[in-house]
Amino acid sequence: MRISSFSIHPVAVADPPLRSSYGRHAPYALRTIIILTTTDGITGVSEAHGGDGSQAALEAIKPMVVGMDPFQLHALWMNWGRPDATGDRSQTWLVPGENPRDARTRAYAAVEAACLDIIGKATGRPVCDLLGGRARDAAPFSAYLFYKHGGGGGLEADTREDEWGECLTPETMVGQCQRMVREYGFREIKLKGGVLEPELEIETIRQLRAAFGPAYPLRIDPNCAWSVETSVHVGVSLKEELSEGGYLEDPTASMEGMAEVRRRLLELGIDTPMASNVATTGFDDISPAWRTGAVQVVLSDPHYWGGIRNVQRLSALCGQLGMGVSMHSNNHLGVSMMIMAHACCVSPEMEFACDTHYPWQTEQDEVLAGGRVKFVDGAVVIGDKPGLGIELDMDQVARLEERYHKLPFRKRDDAEEMRKHVDPAWQRILPRW
Amino acid sequence: MRISSFSIHPVAVADPPLRSSYGRHAPYALRTIIILTTTDGITGVSEAHGGDGSQAALEAIKPMVVGMDPFQLHALWMNWGRPDATGDRSQTWLVPGENPRDARTRAYAAVEAACLDIIGKATGRPVCDLLGGRARDAAPFSAYLFYKHGGGGGLEADTREDEWGECLTPETMVGQCQRMVREYGFREIKLKGGVLEPELEIETIRQLRAAFGPAYPLRIDPNCAWSVETSVHVGVSLKEELSEGGYLEDPTASMEGMAEVRRRLLELGIDTPMASNVATTGFDDISPAWRTGAVQVVLSDPHYWGGIRNVQRLSALCGQLGMGVSMHSNNHLGVSMMIMAHACCVSPEMEFACDTHYPWQTEQDEVLAGGRVKFVDGAVVIGDKPGLGIELDMDQVARLEERYHKLPFRKRDDAEEMRKHVDPAWQRILPRW
Repeated sequence: MRISSFSIHPVAVADPPLRSSYGRHAPYALRTIIILTTTDGITGVSEAHGGDGSQAALEAIKPMVVGMDPFQLHALWMNWGRPDATGDRSQTWLVPGENPRDARTRAYAAVEAACLDIIGKATGRPVCDLLGGRARDAAPFSAYLFYKHGGGGGLEADTREDEWGECLTPETMVGQCQRMVREYGFREIKLKGGVLEPELEIETIRQLRAAFGPAYPLRIDPNCAWSVETSVHVGVSLKEELSEGGYLEDPTASMEGMAEVRRRLLELGIDTPMASNVATTGFDDISPAWRTGAVQVVLSDPHYWGGIRNVQRLSALCGQLGMGVSMHSNNHLGVSMMIMAHACCVSPEMEFACDTHYPWQTEQDEVLAGGRVKFVDGAVVIGDKPGLGIELDMDQVARLEERYHKLPFRKRDDAEEMRKHVDPAWQRILPRW
Repeated sequence: MRISSFSIHPVAVADPPLRSSYGRHAPYALRTIIILTTTDGITGVSEAHGGDGSQAALEAIKPMVVGMDPFQLHALWMNWGRPDATGDRSQTWLVPGENPRDARTRAYAAVEAACLDIIGKATGRPVCDLLGGRARDAAPFSAYLFYKHGGGGGLEADTREDEWGECLTPETMVGQCQRMVREYGFREIKLKGGVLEPELEIETIRQLRAAFGPAYPLRIDPNCAWSVETSVHVGVSLKEELSEGGYLEDPTASMEGMAEVRRRLLELGIDTPMASNVATTGFDDISPAWRTGAVQVVLSDPHYWGGIRNVQRLSALCGQLGMGVSMHSNNHLGVSMMIMAHACCVSPEMEFACDTHYPWQTEQDEVLAGGRVKFVDGAVVIGDKPGLGIELDMDQVARLEERYHKLPFRKRDDAEEMRKHVDPAWQRILPRW
């Protein structure tokens, strides 16, 4: 069995105006759908980040993939997948999916998932069963809350309102969370911060705790918006709220900054774990993160960490070093949803619910035949279908691809959206507070 | 597909009187052959350590395995396979395979290999292809040299001479190595030390270097026979000989002792890596070994480290921490040979040739249909046969099992053999020198 074709479909997915320290989400998130076909007529699908950079990396790996046996993934990893050893790999200034230093790793990851889908279909087995079997039968995700402006994304004929409305206060955030928990059954909560004044974000977390109680662990992630001083202040203020299953994620920029926040909190007797997907973006970051104490919970990602097997490796590594492991998310469609769910289910050490932006997208823009992936009690159940367990609706792929080609942008730029809609002089400043 | 039967065949394999710091090998090495059968009639084979302890652990895991889907290995690992977290896991005083703290891990490992063999046969693929594919097509092994008495093992009617003869001097060791390199094509050399006076072992390594030149990396492993002082002396004396692909393996007992040897050698500007399978026997040992500098090369083992996937995890972990990784061996048959070869081929980071006792066993005691595993240029080539790529010769299994039942011992005891044949007062003393 050899791979005989590799097709790349850039797509645009309506996205609401979510806010973060990077700025404001554009009306469309860019993604890429990948389809591999084998000489036996088996099809493997995958999903990757979107835009020109992602597409160029996929085009570059293509000649190595066409003709290859889909089982021979180590060879592709060794030839092409490993990230560049030199240079800053942090995502302090780059949104995930835009870091040129892991571009090849991300392309490898996309190919790996499609190959595992093929292998699963060829053997009649779900992907998770090919990777050691299920450490759990369902992948738990958290309610991923965002401050946001009103609106559900899209442009012109496509424009639509969303069911979430504007959310720029602690009170409306509690409402957003109640709705999300009601609809999806999430049991853990993560707030994207770095948007309002820190005191308001502290207040948001407190109101969430008051509304949901300590059975719902709470996390906050301001994407490096705070100084060390402010990070420590938030850590002290939310000492209770972020304990027991909670964490403080990337409060400040750089490994050194993170380590200093940790040190100062520990000195004050506060053991809130520090989580990161900004300071730790690749395997080479784990040892310094561990040595300096900068990170206690690493956010994996089956896309930019280099595939599902690398998420397993990362989980084992973290488990061994006494670090926790969770999973990062970007805006994504149902293909990535299942890649993430399989990755979680084959990683015994992954004991924090994973992030997902999935609730922010809608049925209207799903590329899966049969519609969106279902959640049960906040988790995605891995069934018995072969491979990733999904099929593409090619009409939907074509529609989103057509839309992609009409868009004027080829790269995520949340700062530009801020200048367009919120403040013409907006710049990302770190630390902002 | 479910596992419907689990049969355990203890076997005895003729073994020459090899020497180490543990004493002298008995005339038979004890091993266990495991055969799983599925409801679809597929057979999976495996091999484990031998004797009563091993058998009891296999009997204990059996009820969990019969009825299980062979793909669901993580569940078995989480329920049963993980080693005990408490207590000393070192092998300073226990030969590998006799440590009660990893008894369950070893039983899990045996089941994992048999399940992978089943999965491979069910899918028509070699085991290595189910684990990410080949990082290399052949697994390189080293010439594993032993000081020894004359004789090829066996008892009474079974007694036979071997082609190797007595080897208790530097000069005869060069002859042993020349023969082994000629017959197997090995490219790296490991000497089991801790037997003769350290000056004689230093002289042995020097004569090996003189005979083979620097293209053949050299290692020496006295299994903790030396004090820190003697270890440093050997390290200094063999500074050149153990560099560039060589290592000093377990010269002294305990993590602290190893760390002190390393520190003192570094102070003298000697960077010879320290390797270990005694101080590091499980994942929990890696972090202290790394932190203290006690170990630079970890010797994995698909048996007591908990299977092939755990060797992959260990390799990735070592790679990430900047440690090297190789593979430990016990006396074994062709089934373990292939388990070890597949484990090596799916571990990209394994860049040292692995250990194997295989040259010390003979065709006469092989349990594989078609005879012994072949070596090409010191390596075992992974072919395209499904699973482990082997079939059992059940007549041979029956013969070795019958022999096992006639033996008076159920446990490896190299010290007892010393008392019987060499010195009635022999005790293992650490450090001996």
